[in-house]
Amino acid sequence: MSEKSKLVLALPKGRILEEVMPIVRAAGIEPEAAFDDPKSRALRFSTNHPELDIIRVRSFDVATFIAFGAAHIGVAGNDVLLEFDSTEIYAPLDLGIGYCRISVAEPKEASENDDPTRWSHVRIATKYPNITQRYFAERGVQAECIKLNGAMELAPRMGLCQRIVDLVSSGATLKANGLVEMETICEITSRLAVNRTALKTRSDEMTNWIEKFREALDAKAA
Amino acid sequence: MSEKSKLVLALPKGRILEEVMPIVRAAGIEPEAAFDDPKSRALRFSTNHPELDIIRVRSFDVATFIAFGAAHIGVAGNDVLLEFDSTEIYAPLDLGIGYCRISVAEPKEASENDDPTRWSHVRIATKYPNITQRYFAERGVQAECIKLNGAMELAPRMGLCQRIVDLVSSGATLKANGLVEMETICEITSRLAVNRTALKTRSDEMTNWIEKFREALDAKAA
Repeated sequence: MSEKSKLVLALPKGRILEEVMPIVRAAGIEPEAAFDDPKSRALRFSTNHPELDIIRVRSFDVATFIAFGAAHIGVAGNDVLLEFDSTEIYAPLDLGIGYCRISVAEPKEASENDDPTRWSHVRIATKYPNITQRYFAERGVQAECIKLNGAMELAPRMGLCQRIVDLVSSGATLKANGLVEMETICEITSRLAVNRTALKTRSDEMTNWIEKFREALDAKAA
Repeated sequence: MSEKSKLVLALPKGRILEEVMPIVRAAGIEPEAAFDDPKSRALRFSTNHPELDIIRVRSFDVATFIAFGAAHIGVAGNDVLLEFDSTEIYAPLDLGIGYCRISVAEPKEASENDDPTRWSHVRIATKYPNITQRYFAERGVQAECIKLNGAMELAPRMGLCQRIVDLVSSGATLKANGLVEMETICEITSRLAVNRTALKTRSDEMTNWIEKFREALDAKAA
């Protein structure tokens, strides 16, 4: 089968991959050995299904590859899907992994005299400028976002801004940096995401894989 | 000395830090022990100079912290400085480390019949949309950029686009992915970068540190 006619499953690099792989395997997909070889420089992998390849890329890039139809199926957190906000991506399944939330936080000493319902303008350091601007715009607050790629928790101490919008899991990192969660913007889990055009033009194959993931989740829940 | 009145030196995380630290130390700056502790979750570190702290953040965030005046001095590649393109950042010293280049590449089989001087519109996967658009605009070519955070080399094979703009060091990764360098956009090294306002308002301290880095480079070259 030629490389171009194969379906491509895009998986996210990093910590979340450990939670994703048991579901991928329960859906009957076994990548070639190089996938688990930490020394491999390969980016694309064959599987036990000749018609299905896997790519392993950063979580934001999973959304980009799917949105442009270069990958057909993938796994991404809904933080990434909400930030990316593409009409070309449809996310039919909640995989029930990667639980966390996107929250607004600010320094403990500031929060004690602060009432979020009275904010009129906020300056926020975040990896999620689109999510942040939409969230605040809905209640008439203009959010000026400073895009950071990491270490958001540093920003208030450094005088970059008073508030941050970030992924929060246990809350330990916020606490360690003297920050308090003010509001939760949304709950996050990882989703199975698919390219809408592929779902129409290669309906049988795509539906088959979505069904396989759904069965894997049902078996896990049972 | 209060945290707010200290000067902050922003250093980039990752591989380049190993090349940066000998210069930082030659400039007489020794961070606290936690800086070299891989288990430390700290993001800000004191140094042997009570008036100088260090933060360690991603390379793009070094530029953001300096541009907003939350860090006063820092080290960043000119890829980051060119992409960020802030009038608030002044880069007085080339540190002579982190040598690489930003290049345009495309698949070997495409390149054999392709003449870059005849391009009128290009679609490009890159981490550097600003650099890419400016470079092509200068010769009247409109570049449609697809922003990826990594694994750019995958994009042509996946049908995302024909061409990429990426950092190239040895060229081995391009070759391994069947890509050929078509043009070099610019040569890259790491620079000492400073916040312009701090250079005016805290002129003595700032000039002193720039001078210390210059002496460290001169000693290395001698």
